[in-house]
Amino acid sequence: MNILEIISKKRDAKELSKEEIEYFVKEYTNGNIKDYQASALIMAIYINGMNDREITDLTISMAKSGEILDLSELGKNIVDKHSTGGVGDKVSIILLPIIASMGIPVAKMSGRGLGFTGGTVDKLESIPGYRTNIEINEFISNVKKIGISMIGQTANLAPADKKIYALRDSIACVENIPLIASSIMSKKIASGANKIVLDVTFGKGAFMKTKESAQKLAEQMVRIGKLAGKEVKCVLTSMDQPLGYAVGNSLEVVEAVNFLKGDMPKDLKEIVLELGANMIQLAGKGESLEENKLKMIKNIENGKGYAKFKEMVQNQGGDISYLEDTNKFEKSKYVSAVVSERVGVIKEINAEEIGKVACYLGAGRTTKEDKIDSSVGIILNKKIGDEVTKYDFLAYVCANDKTKLKEAEKKIFEIYKIC
Amino acid sequence: MNILEIISKKRDAKELSKEEIEYFVKEYTNGNIKDYQASALIMAIYINGMNDREITDLTISMAKSGEILDLSELGKNIVDKHSTGGVGDKVSIILLPIIASMGIPVAKMSGRGLGFTGGTVDKLESIPGYRTNIEINEFISNVKKIGISMIGQTANLAPADKKIYALRDSIACVENIPLIASSIMSKKIASGANKIVLDVTFGKGAFMKTKESAQKLAEQMVRIGKLAGKEVKCVLTSMDQPLGYAVGNSLEVVEAVNFLKGDMPKDLKEIVLELGANMIQLAGKGESLEENKLKMIKNIENGKGYAKFKEMVQNQGGDISYLEDTNKFEKSKYVSAVVSERVGVIKEINAEEIGKVACYLGAGRTTKEDKIDSSVGIILNKKIGDEVTKYDFLAYVCANDKTKLKEAEKKIFEIYKIC
Repeated sequence: MNILEIISKKRDAKELSKEEIEYFVKEYTNGNIKDYQASALIMAIYINGMNDREITDLTISMAKSGEILDLSELGKNIVDKHSTGGVGDKVSIILLPIIASMGIPVAKMSGRGLGFTGGTVDKLESIPGYRTNIEINEFISNVKKIGISMIGQTANLAPADKKIYALRDSIACVENIPLIASSIMSKKIASGANKIVLDVTFGKGAFMKTKESAQKLAEQMVRIGKLAGKEVKCVLTSMDQPLGYAVGNSLEVVEAVNFLKGDMPKDLKEIVLELGANMIQLAGKGESLEENKLKMIKNIENGKGYAKFKEMVQNQGGDISYLEDTNKFEKSKYVSAVVSERVGVIKEINAEEIGKVACYLGAGRTTKEDKIDSSVGIILNKKIGDEVTKYDFLAYVCANDKTKLKEAEKKIFEIYKIC
Repeated sequence: MNILEIISKKRDAKELSKEEIEYFVKEYTNGNIKDYQASALIMAIYINGMNDREITDLTISMAKSGEILDLSELGKNIVDKHSTGGVGDKVSIILLPIIASMGIPVAKMSGRGLGFTGGTVDKLESIPGYRTNIEINEFISNVKKIGISMIGQTANLAPADKKIYALRDSIACVENIPLIASSIMSKKIASGANKIVLDVTFGKGAFMKTKESAQKLAEQMVRIGKLAGKEVKCVLTSMDQPLGYAVGNSLEVVEAVNFLKGDMPKDLKEIVLELGANMIQLAGKGESLEENKLKMIKNIENGKGYAKFKEMVQNQGGDISYLEDTNKFEKSKYVSAVVSERVGVIKEINAEEIGKVACYLGAGRTTKEDKIDSSVGIILNKKIGDEVTKYDFLAYVCANDKTKLKEAEKKIFEIYKIC
């Protein structure tokens, strides 16, 4: 096998064999295929496409490039959950304890934030003491012991995907459905679950800008799942404005805790219930989505979901006094309100722009090496459809730097479109 | 300007502006754009194409990446000649002295051989003492003094083309008409001529395998020439079998000398006259191609072409006693004949395969660093259409290594298809 022949075939829009795809992924990960050769092949894939069989082979090859987690001792119906990314997305932190509280085992590895979207691991780490970087043995024994563990991705999770993703990012080949789908699915397959619920976001704060493209991505991932022997369900959710009210690491944990205590923002509640109902169904614990939602509400109201969250945090070394009294979370030095200058209705709060402001304040990373500031971020006070009068507070900016505070206020004011 | 935006545009089959193309060529040559980014862009160009304006801008940008030769002091009608490559192609060595002998100035920079095609510079260097590596000042003063100089390409001739060509070679993006055309034309433009005759070869020993693709390449180069203000004429020539009889450096020089002395193989004569007649026309020294050919024949018969060649060789330090007595050229250690085992007619002598055997014997380079062995090669004894009987000699192998000799004999025997 020879990389030049493989590149030529895809350049001429021909189908690559399983062996050719495996060869490329293996030899590129090993460093035997050069970046500039991988780059040419990826561009050819971007332009000429791949069929479902090729995409699935790419996905599986990338998953196999590192260790594939063996969760078999946890049972047959391990359900994973993944979101294609959003702003203010604290769904995993809320949803998974509720699921675990219903006796469904949850073994969840999450990513860190990069760019304008946050990462669940960064959010969990804002709870003092919480360990996201634990060994796989401990991870599995946690799930066996209390039914849930949420940790960071292991370094060896689909390393080929990491390398290919970084390359795609530097050659304008990110926004491509087959490549996005295989990237996501490779990590899910490597994470060991055999059933997966995917939250495919669309809109101004998502990777997919339109519902149609999100639908295509969802269908692609379902087809990969089928060919790879994984049951996959997708839920399409709008990410036109941030999810819930808080954007920023500890701010979002506080919102998650409040949710589990019963204070549920409407959009967040809808998504949590929809994704959860599908997870329960896949786990074989309830066919009817509507009944599943009612069971979830019950476990929020009776405190079982919150109790499970506390149990998980404590089990992983986190200080649960912060959950019991969320005022203990370190506050940012400055908090100021962004004030409406007119009467009207909120028409738009561009989620991506809000995410970028949060990132600018220190809540996210521009490069992988950046440190996260847990306490900064934005708390929306008004959302799309809300009526405002003059002097109403639109949002609060939480900052640790005065210049950034002022700049963020200005930006947030501009992001709120009022008609 | 930003390379990611440029890649995205061509990825989406959009037209690149002149500024974008110039930016890419300049920054890639400088090393500010990475190989893997250039690679993605080139693949996108390969697949999505470029219009004539884009190709011309690419060509001119590559020409401008190094020094553009100023030949203006030699007059307005400097005509250059270029072949897209062949096997046994000693046309420049024969043709250009004839042209110069008619009072048309010839300032010719040639390339070295790589892969199965030979290079004029390597061939000239088999004449002891001949200097191909001379300064531009001397090159121009040579032309002023005796009307002709033939040298190697300067290191700084279209360096962007060198870099892009090497990259294309390692990402399966060589065989693409816009890219081939701009590569050739960038070097021609940088070489300073304003009129160019191109020998576009096609067939088994050429880059272009079919006459149709050669025609397309020719038309593309004429269009680039027009947009770049250069007058370009193309002659399409078949390269199904090697040109003439000799393949190998000093072997070809000997054949060229014999040609100039009046011993003209039919196919070689046809191409020399056709290309020369067009050069004379472009130089404004004769409108009728047929009359131009007669003038050339005259200057072969009266010895003026040969005299000009000797004058050039002497002027550049070469030992002309080798031309006067070609037996002086160092012989290879071994010479053996390849013998026909049957009666029939020669149907095929794949030029590329012959070129590869010559290269294997040491007449060519596999990598840029390889040293050339001047004395080795192949002398065909029979060509396509010739009748042979049993025990007739098909060809002679000239080798300096016994194992290679045997291997080459076997290969040549297989390359000759007799029906």
